[in-house]
Amino acid sequence: MRVHAYAASSASAPLAPTVIERRDVGPNDVLIEIKYAGICHSDIHTVRGDWGPQPYPLVPGHEIVGLVAEVGADVTRHRVGDRVGVGCMVDSCRECVNCRNGDEQYCLGGMVPTYAGVDRDGTTTQGGYATHVVVDADFVLSVPATLDFAAAAPLLCAGITTYSPLRRWNAGPGTKVAVVGLGGLGHLAVKIAHALGAEVTVLSQSLKKREDGLRLGADHYHATSDPATFEQLSSRFDLIVNTVSAAIDVDAYLGLLAVDGTLVNVGAPAEPLSLNVFSLIGGRRSYAGSMIGGIRRTQEMLDFCAAHDIGADVEVIPADRINDAYERVLASDVRYRFVIDTATLG
Amino acid sequence: MRVHAYAASSASAPLAPTVIERRDVGPNDVLIEIKYAGICHSDIHTVRGDWGPQPYPLVPGHEIVGLVAEVGADVTRHRVGDRVGVGCMVDSCRECVNCRNGDEQYCLGGMVPTYAGVDRDGTTTQGGYATHVVVDADFVLSVPATLDFAAAAPLLCAGITTYSPLRRWNAGPGTKVAVVGLGGLGHLAVKIAHALGAEVTVLSQSLKKREDGLRLGADHYHATSDPATFEQLSSRFDLIVNTVSAAIDVDAYLGLLAVDGTLVNVGAPAEPLSLNVFSLIGGRRSYAGSMIGGIRRTQEMLDFCAAHDIGADVEVIPADRINDAYERVLASDVRYRFVIDTATLG
Repeated sequence: MRVHAYAASSASAPLAPTVIERRDVGPNDVLIEIKYAGICHSDIHTVRGDWGPQPYPLVPGHEIVGLVAEVGADVTRHRVGDRVGVGCMVDSCRECVNCRNGDEQYCLGGMVPTYAGVDRDGTTTQGGYATHVVVDADFVLSVPATLDFAAAAPLLCAGITTYSPLRRWNAGPGTKVAVVGLGGLGHLAVKIAHALGAEVTVLSQSLKKREDGLRLGADHYHATSDPATFEQLSSRFDLIVNTVSAAIDVDAYLGLLAVDGTLVNVGAPAEPLSLNVFSLIGGRRSYAGSMIGGIRRTQEMLDFCAAHDIGADVEVIPADRINDAYERVLASDVRYRFVIDTATLG
Repeated sequence: MRVHAYAASSASAPLAPTVIERRDVGPNDVLIEIKYAGICHSDIHTVRGDWGPQPYPLVPGHEIVGLVAEVGADVTRHRVGDRVGVGCMVDSCRECVNCRNGDEQYCLGGMVPTYAGVDRDGTTTQGGYATHVVVDADFVLSVPATLDFAAAAPLLCAGITTYSPLRRWNAGPGTKVAVVGLGGLGHLAVKIAHALGAEVTVLSQSLKKREDGLRLGADHYHATSDPATFEQLSSRFDLIVNTVSAAIDVDAYLGLLAVDGTLVNVGAPAEPLSLNVFSLIGGRRSYAGSMIGGIRRTQEMLDFCAAHDIGADVEVIPADRINDAYERVLASDVRYRFVIDTATLG
């Protein structure tokens, strides 16, 4: 099956319209007619080769929602016409301890990423900036009917990336959660942490987005460019979710944690960070990392977001504005996620 | 009350016999006739000024066991003749959130250390290398009758330092725990983790102490000087307790953790460490720190050790061998803790 898509032909080329091949629908496969695909910062890093050489042409996109157009003979979880989603993975070994525990993203054999990965048949996976995709049914999520479709797309990466650590480290009533950075990830972290019942503080470089932060559900908003912030909030938080991939002063942020508190990175700078172990020992604190989430957890997140009416704040764009959108993402000029209307791809 | 003690008169002087003043027994105080005092590595760091300038003359010692000789009018927890112990703290504010939560070691006002600290009356605290000490009853632990007295002394610091993180990070049946370093702290970590029901692995520089490690309760023993160790044990442990204060390759040790695993330091190198955040994100791992434990937890630890017949492996020495013992501790030439017989002080 040949489908319309947008691809990068090299690390330096802009994305351009193309036609790609999708595999035949196997017995456990689902053919999805894609409706929306979110633009994730990691799409840009990947296509531009920031994380190493890539297989070109490359169709990015791992925040996918659409309708089931066809199912394989053995598929029981999804039916034609169902609203579904696909996130950052399309397969894993399903046999290792992590897969068995529902942490397919940590598959010891290596999960198959939605694009630029090697699929089980040896072909290169191609992502969601396309009209259709064929995915193993076990990696296809159900998108509840009440979720706005365009606003739901970013949940498949940005949503689970923030929901997973918030749940893992028990954000909820009585806990104080800080979110560092109010971008695509951060704005969902604020909404979700608030819906989980936590007291939410945004720590952003400046107060520019303060009004937005409070509207999204934050109780407090502080500028990290102001040194007083770090004094005022000393030993305050049970959990800090750091959505900023740039290097931070880890010791300064650890100082904001109460006893038994955790600072968790959901992104990572390329270069190693410096850390004074006394910052950990001085409050039985933890510095942790978290990467997306497993399939069960992702479904739980979608159901939670539906129950709490949470979607991303999106700017829907036609395909011919993808390259422009990339520049704006790099300039942090989006509130808070671009989503491609795939009807414009054809 | 004037009592015999061993003190350092400066950072460069050897410890020598002296006589110090103990305060009168107040309404909530306990006078303890000290029987044994353990020699902790941090005694040496402190008296030698490695951690900053100190108030001399200085009597170290925060692994204290003895008998109650006198109690103040308001003391109900302890009676004359009781077997008791004192660890690293002798007071705290008792009002801050951490004190109220039983984490007096993290008192926001600053706990009062057993020696070289400023007591609430403004005097300098003096530690356990002495025949007697006066301590607030709330900071005096009960030492169960079945515990050997000399072997119990090191539990007050080395015991709680390792017990606290083992409990905090849920070492127990079905968990795989590694202990880095088999010294004063490490040998107790092995005994306690084993008694908690965990599968215990020692990670030591060489295999020199392998026989000891297995006798103490370890199931496995590996040399960290062998690079194969880090391949063979990849993604294996739920918890790694690092008892080594020297700088380690944090990323290498994080690679030994399973998903959701924690590496916890109970000591810290003076200089900052380098850490690649991908090591955390790649397995939802945590790097944590822990410092001794609160009073309730310390009592729980003593009761646990009594129930499981756990004491330190000690070499009991007379006071005139303290300086020699210091040199041997620095050379890692002790299996596994020196304990001073305070009857030799007078």
